[in-house]
Amino acid sequence: MDVFPLGLWLDLLGTFVFGISGALLAVRRELDVFGIAVLSVAAGLAGGMIRDALLGATPPTALADSRNLLTAIAAGACAFFGHRLLAKLNKPVMILDALGLGLFAVSGCGKALDFGLDPLPAILLGVLTAVGGGAVRDLLVVETPRVLREEIYAFAAMVGAVIVVIGAGLGFSETSTAVVGVVAVVAIRVVSALRGWRAPRAPR
Amino acid sequence: MDVFPLGLWLDLLGTFVFGISGALLAVRRELDVFGIAVLSVAAGLAGGMIRDALLGATPPTALADSRNLLTAIAAGACAFFGHRLLAKLNKPVMILDALGLGLFAVSGCGKALDFGLDPLPAILLGVLTAVGGGAVRDLLVVETPRVLREEIYAFAAMVGAVIVVIGAGLGFSETSTAVVGVVAVVAIRVVSALRGWRAPRAPR
Amino acid sequence: MDVFPLGLWLDLLGTFVFGISGALLAVRRELDVFGIAVLSVAAGLAGGMIRDALLGATPPTALADSRNLLTAIAAGACAFFGHRLLAKLNKPVMILDALGLGLFAVSGCGKALDFGLDPLPAILLGVLTAVGGGAVRDLLVVETPRVLREEIYAFAAMVGAVIVVIGAGLGFSETSTAVVGVVAVVAIRVVSALRGWRAPRAPR
Repeated sequence: MDVFPLGLWLDLLGTFVFGISGALLAVRRELDVFGIAVLSVAAGLAGGMIRDALLGATPPTALADSRNLLTAIAAGACAFFGHRLLAKLNKPVMILDALGLGLFAVSGCGKALDFGLDPLPAILLGVLTAVGGGAVRDLLVVETPRVLREEIYAFAAMVGAVIVVIGAGLGFSETSTAVVGVVAVVAIRVVSALRGWRAPRAPR
Repeated sequence: MDVFPLGLWLDLLGTFVFGISGALLAVRRELDVFGIAVLSVAAGLAGGMIRDALLGATPPTALADSRNLLTAIAAGACAFFGHRLLAKLNKPVMILDALGLGLFAVSGCGKALDFGLDPLPAILLGVLTAVGGGAVRDLLVVETPRVLREEIYAFAAMVGAVIVVIGAGLGFSETSTAVVGVVAVVAIRVVSALRGWRAPRAPR
Repeated sequence: MDVFPLGLWLDLLGTFVFGISGALLAVRRELDVFGIAVLSVAAGLAGGMIRDALLGATPPTALADSRNLLTAIAAGACAFFGHRLLAKLNKPVMILDALGLGLFAVSGCGKALDFGLDPLPAILLGVLTAVGGGAVRDLLVVETPRVLREEIYAFAAMVGAVIVVIGAGLGFSETSTAVVGVVAVVAIRVVSALRGWRAPRAPR
């Protein structure tokens, strides 16, 4: 547990699943192998970098620990060779993206609380960490970020961050709170996407 | 004055007016209530976050003080329910945007001077703070940022920052310098927009 | 050498050549004089700002030393008056961009090593510094960044950063390593662009 504390696990898993999402987008855009690497690394590491730069936790874990970069590149390599298989698995890819969203929402909010932030800003930083990597990924290929295209996306991340805040307030163990938070994000995101739930719009 | 020092007032007011601009853009793009919240928060808080991350003033005030986030969300809520009214008020919305530009130019440049930056970089950071939130807002919906679409925009912010530098150099009170700076930005921006002033282009 | 240490030279030269690239893009988009200034400053300074914010080296050199801003503005002024001449020199402009890529890759990786980063993250930060300014420049006018449009671009920057890591490991002088690194980046980038080299794509 000393070598792989909870925050690192959350980050590495989140980096891997978002790294795959970045690489698949690059393959779909017919980018070359370096473009695939750029989008894997951007999608996998940008959210954590933004989180750490804002917390003043520099250098960010994405740069302080080589395992983060290796994970993002491994995700890119998996997608490079396995993209035909992954492309057939449309729903699993959506689930992977939901998993990354949950992992980073929990890691971002938890780290914000560790740095002494109040609950509301900690929730904001959790959401920002969760949606940041995907936003950089999509902006680099000049697409509207998924957070503004999908209906229940930032909200799902917010629920995960709120669970972390409540769990910390009630003194639950970090690991069990993290598991509940990630499961909640994935469940909300996947169910809402499969059922086509729509959020309310401004009254006309 | 201790609870609401000048910098906080400038930030909260700027966050509110930029938050409204983000929410109105989201409504126009027919985004749902969460998309409205995302663009309110991005437009209202991104400029100050960039400023504080570059100054090393971490966590940024946008995360250190919950009132900033609450203000951005309140702006989003106002726009959610009042967007039909606001849409009719075309000129007032442009004036609100000019007000946000002035408030953040003054707050960014003033904080830069407090952190010991030289005048020129302090002016740059003021302009960056002022145009940053709007740039993030526009890029998230894949639009050319207003700073590159409008004629007299970065220049107006620069005038406000220059006034802060001159006021600090002459030893004037921060509050009076801030008022003059904000008024100057709003006046230049509004008059130039209403009159359709154009800046020179590169010689052909 | 005290007043102009190696890192500053690399940054100032890189800022100048990227500043020209930003200004030429602004002229091509028929932006006004302030838009030209915005893109010169963004292209010239954003890469170094991202590097320093991630390293916790705040305020970034782009804000700590006025010469960086003056260099970016001087580049914008050169392009403002000389853009017809520069536009005729299509290949020289591509070479200037390659030079900026090399200068920032070397400066970013070297500074990362100075801050105690491991070799792999130091290489990542070198690449990020090199491609960051151009990415911000292109995103501001809603174009796919050059790093994803060109074939051998991030790879060239990576080679320069790898040379810095190897040179530091073998104890070579910083200056000679920097020269070899920059020359390698320029050579790879220019030859690959002139010959139309293509990188492999994912297997279909």
